[in-house]
Amino acid sequence: MKIVVINRMLKSKHKDKITDIACRIGAEVCFTESENDLPAGFEAPDIVYGFGVNIARTQQSLQWLCVPSAGVDYLMKPDTFANEACLLSNSSGAYGVTIAEHMIAVSLVMMRRLTEVFEETSHGVWGSPRAQRSLKDCRITVLGTGDIGTCFAKRAKAFEPALIVGVNRSGVCDDPSYDRIVSVDALDEILPETDLLAMSLPDTPQTRGILTRDRIASLTQGAFIVNVGRGSAIDEDALADSLDAGHLGGAALDVFRTEPLPQNNRLWKTKGLLITPHIAGNLTLEHTLDTNVSMFCEDLINFAEGRPLHYAVDRSRGY
Amino acid sequence: MKIVVINRMLKSKHKDKITDIACRIGAEVCFTESENDLPAGFEAPDIVYGFGVNIARTQQSLQWLCVPSAGVDYLMKPDTFANEACLLSNSSGAYGVTIAEHMIAVSLVMMRRLTEVFEETSHGVWGSPRAQRSLKDCRITVLGTGDIGTCFAKRAKAFEPALIVGVNRSGVCDDPSYDRIVSVDALDEILPETDLLAMSLPDTPQTRGILTRDRIASLTQGAFIVNVGRGSAIDEDALADSLDAGHLGGAALDVFRTEPLPQNNRLWKTKGLLITPHIAGNLTLEHTLDTNVSMFCEDLINFAEGRPLHYAVDRSRGY
Repeated sequence: MKIVVINRMLKSKHKDKITDIACRIGAEVCFTESENDLPAGFEAPDIVYGFGVNIARTQQSLQWLCVPSAGVDYLMKPDTFANEACLLSNSSGAYGVTIAEHMIAVSLVMMRRLTEVFEETSHGVWGSPRAQRSLKDCRITVLGTGDIGTCFAKRAKAFEPALIVGVNRSGVCDDPSYDRIVSVDALDEILPETDLLAMSLPDTPQTRGILTRDRIASLTQGAFIVNVGRGSAIDEDALADSLDAGHLGGAALDVFRTEPLPQNNRLWKTKGLLITPHIAGNLTLEHTLDTNVSMFCEDLINFAEGRPLHYAVDRSRGY
Repeated sequence: MKIVVINRMLKSKHKDKITDIACRIGAEVCFTESENDLPAGFEAPDIVYGFGVNIARTQQSLQWLCVPSAGVDYLMKPDTFANEACLLSNSSGAYGVTIAEHMIAVSLVMMRRLTEVFEETSHGVWGSPRAQRSLKDCRITVLGTGDIGTCFAKRAKAFEPALIVGVNRSGVCDDPSYDRIVSVDALDEILPETDLLAMSLPDTPQTRGILTRDRIASLTQGAFIVNVGRGSAIDEDALADSLDAGHLGGAALDVFRTEPLPQNNRLWKTKGLLITPHIAGNLTLEHTLDTNVSMFCEDLINFAEGRPLHYAVDRSRGY
């Protein structure tokens, strides 16, 4: 059995851990920084851990692709896998901690108008206090209650919000950080009572365009939006209009319909919009990378022993 | 009995609440925006709620001064009170929530290098990921475990730090957010194992200059400092040197030895230093103002009924 690992961030400890398990299950492993630079003998691997999109498309040998990302939307098109029976797993569960920290950070930066303050002090200006908002007593809606949304809810809870409502497909989630869980059918009832809408949805036919113009308008005057899931969830033009009109209090987007955000996109110039270049979750945090590798290793043992993958993607759902 | 309330932020509900209690205890109350603009008959009040420094210095009639700030260092000089027996209370307890939000915000902004990201995106630049740090697994030391430090510890706890050590005068604090409490005598043992030092100390002879050059040097390489207490606690020159030398990972100061920070102060130009103009706690948050007024009202009843003030300042300690 041949395993190809594609990841330039890995440290020795990560490679040792993977090599150790590969050895125990009688597999050979190679580490590479690019799927276009495979060592001899690894051109038709059984397993790929990494962004092995070309290998998946061309190699019938591939039995399992484990991607280090949480989102797998880019793997949902037809003809993505030469071997239609190829298993797919993702790394949803590795990013919750770091992305939740991003979400809390940008929420507070918006509510406390800190970019305006930093802009002043970086130019030597000792400014005056501004009207601030607070997570305390805030009505928070978490749209998407997976690992990321729930890590955010756990942290947000400590700030004593008025309530945290989780919204998901099933209306079921047993994490105690949520005061209430509703199904997405109730979204329209929840939005008018939302001060902070935190979005961490995968890209699926059901989530695409879910935050419509009408739904943005239905949010409380002065409400904030944070999106760290996929840009496709939001009507970006309606969001910009709402910010321009002073209806929304602010928005922080880490993801966009087109990335990188095109130079001529109006979002670059929209006031009250905090743009980050899809960096909320990256592998520079040791915790994130450690978890990512541990999840693959767990499933490598499952795979070798013929058990189902713990982090398998349900390709019919798209996440 | 005459009560003067000096506070331009108060809303009708706050004035009504104070007036109602004054009425019940048979006192007269006036509201003003400045202690230099007192209505006739209120020139020599019994009680002042507000920054009534001139009244305190000149009026023998004054029996109780309640200041809306947490810090009272500016009232510790001799000759501050014409009536030496005048009671003094502060509003320590009103600011924990808002200042703790500031502390979490600036900690995450520094650790995730968000000012660099915002600087890029505000100029239309879609940048690359930067090496980030995290509150997860971070060793946090909270120097000063009063309302502010403990509100911060409660919130920081939700981010799953490695540990939170509280440092105070007594070595005693029963808040469960702290993994450990040590007395300030043990500070030198704690600093070399600190990744994030959060300071919320009052200005007293004991705290002045407590973060010496040697202590800054003893912090872990790459450590972060947040100070929201008083600027006098830190050797600012040593802090700037440490940042310049790349020893500290960053510092966020809301308070300074001289405020406003003088134009020619080197701190304005120190790289890795996040400056905010003493805005971490302000009265724009409804929660902060509500709490502030409630605390005064609670003590107004105590005062009228001859009981000790709940929020009395121990003038021998200075807080």
